[in-house]
Amino acid sequence: MAVPVALIQGASRGLGLEFCKHILKNKSLAVVIATCRNPDGSSELRGLSGQHPGRLTVLKLDVNHEQEILEAAEQVKQNFGRLDLLINSSAMLHPSKRGETSLRDVSAQGVISTLTTNTVGPLVMAKYFAPLLQKGSGAFGQQPAVKAKHHSGIIANITAKVGSIGDNGLGGWYSYRMSKAALNMATRNLSIELGRSRPRVVCVSIHPGTVNTDLSRPYHKNVPKEKLFSPEHSVSCLMSIINSLNIDKTGKAYSWDGTELPW
Amino acid sequence: MAVPVALIQGASRGLGLEFCKHILKNKSLAVVIATCRNPDGSSELRGLSGQHPGRLTVLKLDVNHEQEILEAAEQVKQNFGRLDLLINSSAMLHPSKRGETSLRDVSAQGVISTLTTNTVGPLVMAKYFAPLLQKGSGAFGQQPAVKAKHHSGIIANITAKVGSIGDNGLGGWYSYRMSKAALNMATRNLSIELGRSRPRVVCVSIHPGTVNTDLSRPYHKNVPKEKLFSPEHSVSCLMSIINSLNIDKTGKAYSWDGTELPW
Repeated sequence: MAVPVALIQGASRGLGLEFCKHILKNKSLAVVIATCRNPDGSSELRGLSGQHPGRLTVLKLDVNHEQEILEAAEQVKQNFGRLDLLINSSAMLHPSKRGETSLRDVSAQGVISTLTTNTVGPLVMAKYFAPLLQKGSGAFGQQPAVKAKHHSGIIANITAKVGSIGDNGLGGWYSYRMSKAALNMATRNLSIELGRSRPRVVCVSIHPGTVNTDLSRPYHKNVPKEKLFSPEHSVSCLMSIINSLNIDKTGKAYSWDGTELPW
Repeated sequence: MAVPVALIQGASRGLGLEFCKHILKNKSLAVVIATCRNPDGSSELRGLSGQHPGRLTVLKLDVNHEQEILEAAEQVKQNFGRLDLLINSSAMLHPSKRGETSLRDVSAQGVISTLTTNTVGPLVMAKYFAPLLQKGSGAFGQQPAVKAKHHSGIIANITAKVGSIGDNGLGGWYSYRMSKAALNMATRNLSIELGRSRPRVVCVSIHPGTVNTDLSRPYHKNVPKEKLFSPEHSVSCLMSIINSLNIDKTGKAYSWDGTELPW
């Protein structure tokens, strides 16, 4: 059996780091490729690498630089030849680290920066890694009995419930909400393009809940304690979803508890 | 009664130009502010100005430049003091003028340019013109009998059915679809923020159908003749929608025939 290969983009901290830990711990045969902007700066990833000799590869990758994405995909191709799971994890709330509370806080540059990192980055990742996912062994998710319905790989984009247009009753956080709505459209489009050709790649958006990470830190005081998840808990829920995916579940957005989110 | 004031952004051609013509012709008391990147280059707008003396003001405005938006809003404030209707019309399919047929055609720069013009532009327009819309006389749309439900102004963002995530069954056109999905989120957010304060501003997305304009020209041969609308027909349908709007209809996306589009 082929060794499962997972790539976690935005892996130096928060959810991305936790996905690396979870897969290394729970999928004992898998290898993990962790990408981040500054590998030298991530002592967490270095520590993890030491704990799992030969199973963790750290690559420099800034999703804002298409050339770096292309080069990382080349490296993965040369070293592994394929990919079974891509998780796009990196995101920002806003360059100021505060979501806009009203139009007063909106700036063109703030919106563009947020869209570039949260939306364009994951799509361009999909562009360069899709060919490797099409060579995957289908090691993540569930393979149905019917062979024609097998998938070779999975793309999971981290979305957010506040990126649901239909669910939006509060407003605010213009940049972040818009970036996740556009990311959901990217997921949907990817699911169609990569579900049409064989082998198929499953593409979903997943919502982690409100997680105790840097992104949401300024807002933790407003979150009831039982609704503020640890990265461990959130990733454990999200990996349950990923482990249950098949081609019939592609092109949708799922919340941490497995329920489908409205667009 | 106050003179109705409408601003059409992206007015040098296509739907934007047609909105100017329609309002000048059908709303005999209204004045129209037409904005475009290069006023000197638009002989159509100059001709229209000659036909309707004193009723059409042309302002230079590139939605990609926040400073120009701010300055245009200052000019409108000084000359008119208020605004009743803002239509955000300018959009591109993709810088190449061709929507992406597959991931192969996707580039970070192409997506960012499309998002900047189609999504960020209209939001930043709303930022600077919302204060003027809050001073509007409510001359467009329907005012209900109950005064507490009156609106002072309307923002109409031109969306597209292909920007509906739920309706997306074909894929492709990554940049354009993502830009319109994100614009729909902006509309929704604006409707919440500007529906909360008084006086209220109604904010909607409207889908013009497939219209015989430069944007869709490369694809006209694939469109059945009866489904390819003239700008006159499309704008006539869209103005019917705008004329029927009230605060209960805010925060939604409407197709040219008045039906609600899914997100």
